[in-house]
Amino acid sequence: MNLSCQQAAQWLRDRDGFLILTHKRPDGDTIGCAIALCLGLRKLGKTAFVLPNEDATSLFSSYWGDTLAPSDFQPDTVVSVDIASEGLFPDSARKYKGKVELAIDHHPSNTGFAQNLCLEADKAACGEILYSILTQWFPVDAAMALPLYVAVATDTGCFMYSNTSPNTHRVAAALMETGFDAAAVNKRHFRTKSYVRLRVEARIMETMELHDDGAIALAAITLADRAELHATEEDLEDIAAFVGQLEGVRTSVTIRELEGGECKLSVRTGPELNASTVCGLLGGGGHAAASGCTIKGTVPQAKAAIMASIRQVQGS
Amino acid sequence: MNLSCQQAAQWLRDRDGFLILTHKRPDGDTIGCAIALCLGLRKLGKTAFVLPNEDATSLFSSYWGDTLAPSDFQPDTVVSVDIASEGLFPDSARKYKGKVELAIDHHPSNTGFAQNLCLEADKAACGEILYSILTQWFPVDAAMALPLYVAVATDTGCFMYSNTSPNTHRVAAALMETGFDAAAVNKRHFRTKSYVRLRVEARIMETMELHDDGAIALAAITLADRAELHATEEDLEDIAAFVGQLEGVRTSVTIRELEGGECKLSVRTGPELNASTVCGLLGGGGHAAASGCTIKGTVPQAKAAIMASIRQVQGS
Repeated sequence: MNLSCQQAAQWLRDRDGFLILTHKRPDGDTIGCAIALCLGLRKLGKTAFVLPNEDATSLFSSYWGDTLAPSDFQPDTVVSVDIASEGLFPDSARKYKGKVELAIDHHPSNTGFAQNLCLEADKAACGEILYSILTQWFPVDAAMALPLYVAVATDTGCFMYSNTSPNTHRVAAALMETGFDAAAVNKRHFRTKSYVRLRVEARIMETMELHDDGAIALAAITLADRAELHATEEDLEDIAAFVGQLEGVRTSVTIRELEGGECKLSVRTGPELNASTVCGLLGGGGHAAASGCTIKGTVPQAKAAIMASIRQVQGS
Repeated sequence: MNLSCQQAAQWLRDRDGFLILTHKRPDGDTIGCAIALCLGLRKLGKTAFVLPNEDATSLFSSYWGDTLAPSDFQPDTVVSVDIASEGLFPDSARKYKGKVELAIDHHPSNTGFAQNLCLEADKAACGEILYSILTQWFPVDAAMALPLYVAVATDTGCFMYSNTSPNTHRVAAALMETGFDAAAVNKRHFRTKSYVRLRVEARIMETMELHDDGAIALAAITLADRAELHATEEDLEDIAAFVGQLEGVRTSVTIRELEGGECKLSVRTGPELNASTVCGLLGGGGHAAASGCTIKGTVPQAKAAIMASIRQVQGS
């Protein structure tokens, strides 16, 4: 059944013994929503916990407080936040497949895996939906506002991405009124980079190839680079966005050399070139503005292949 | 006389023939406020222009529209926005010293140079004050909302800096409701970097010195680096903030080699070290968390001098 925020608030009020699930490779939105919902339910006098997520990184460790479920907790009601499908459950949540009674989500692609669904696909962050639900019960306090702010701010790149709406800013304003330290959150998530990450970015700049007067950028991180810089997967996260910020670049290609003689390519394009068509020629695909493919071969071979593919699509 | 936003709105309504001044090295706040005020006054049926500012960069050129004053414009009323003192007038505004009838500003350091002052020092951006004034007259339209959004967003680093308040977000929400393309503004100002700037950042990372297990970072840009990378002043703007984002760094020193055998140092510190004291030992000064000084000598000599100064303050 589809529930509005008001109906979801009532549905939750009528139940108890909550376990809240977050998604695989959890981000600030799923974690922030889970913690805020847990605190809100407890304020209603309920028993509520968040299922520990084995993929959670240290970036979020200071937010959990005492919300994490002990291993022997037996829930009566299982709720998921910001999870679009059961395929996105972390391993720890596998046993709850088919058992989620309420999914709260903002992904239009939600598969409807839960018995009840509270979906608002026009919201930039699931945190905006949680704010609507919690405020059906009471004004949020600073303890709930902090994780909700993390949710809303991280899913919008600190109000920078195109998903940011007037509602996103209104929710941020209301959350900040509670008085938590938003500047510290912003500093941690948006104004801090690791030394290794910055070395990776520097390496990319030193080895970048530009074509067509700078309209096409080819960037690569080799296995040798990774080893020399001691770069982990976390250090390489969303590295295509780094290349994509280059002024004047219309098509950016980020190449990561993988073990086993393969390269993984991420292609971002302006509206004059379809990235999905370009990657499709090499067995990949995705969206018109952002696609990917995997190529057998070395980095120079991958560069040659993607340039040939770009030229073919440009000429057609 | 001090005027509230309501009083300033009435004061402006009672006059005509407006020339609006922006500050030296104009940023998004002063430019956005000037354009929005000009459009607002025109909507009231007034004659209004913005004085062209010779320091304005191309980053803002798309916003001016037809607001710039022709060279023969003779104003009846001169208003300044976001200018704290006459010392911050651009050269083009020098002849208006002593003639500003209303200053609209958010700097607590405003010298009171104008006959009337509308000052709200708790506002992150002067754009928030302009929003209050304009909405005394009518709801802002998209044409006024765009430059006001530029003002508010750029002065807060896209809602990231500690000056951001609930009011900042509320104003952003109201402005975005008018329907201009905020995502395009964010892309231009916060998600675009020049190739040269990124090469400068890469060079800094390649040559950075870390001390005390990474708690102290010494970064430098030499004259040779600048020449090799063809880096302009604009490419080096706020480069200390780049170094300041390094995870784990408590004290960051950014050194710029100048012509004539000097180095300019920017020092940022955590609360355990007073940057002003450190720089004071070398003839400089500033704030506890961010200070600067100029040292006669080469980059290696500047590094040695600042490290000695840091050690002396740490030991005292």
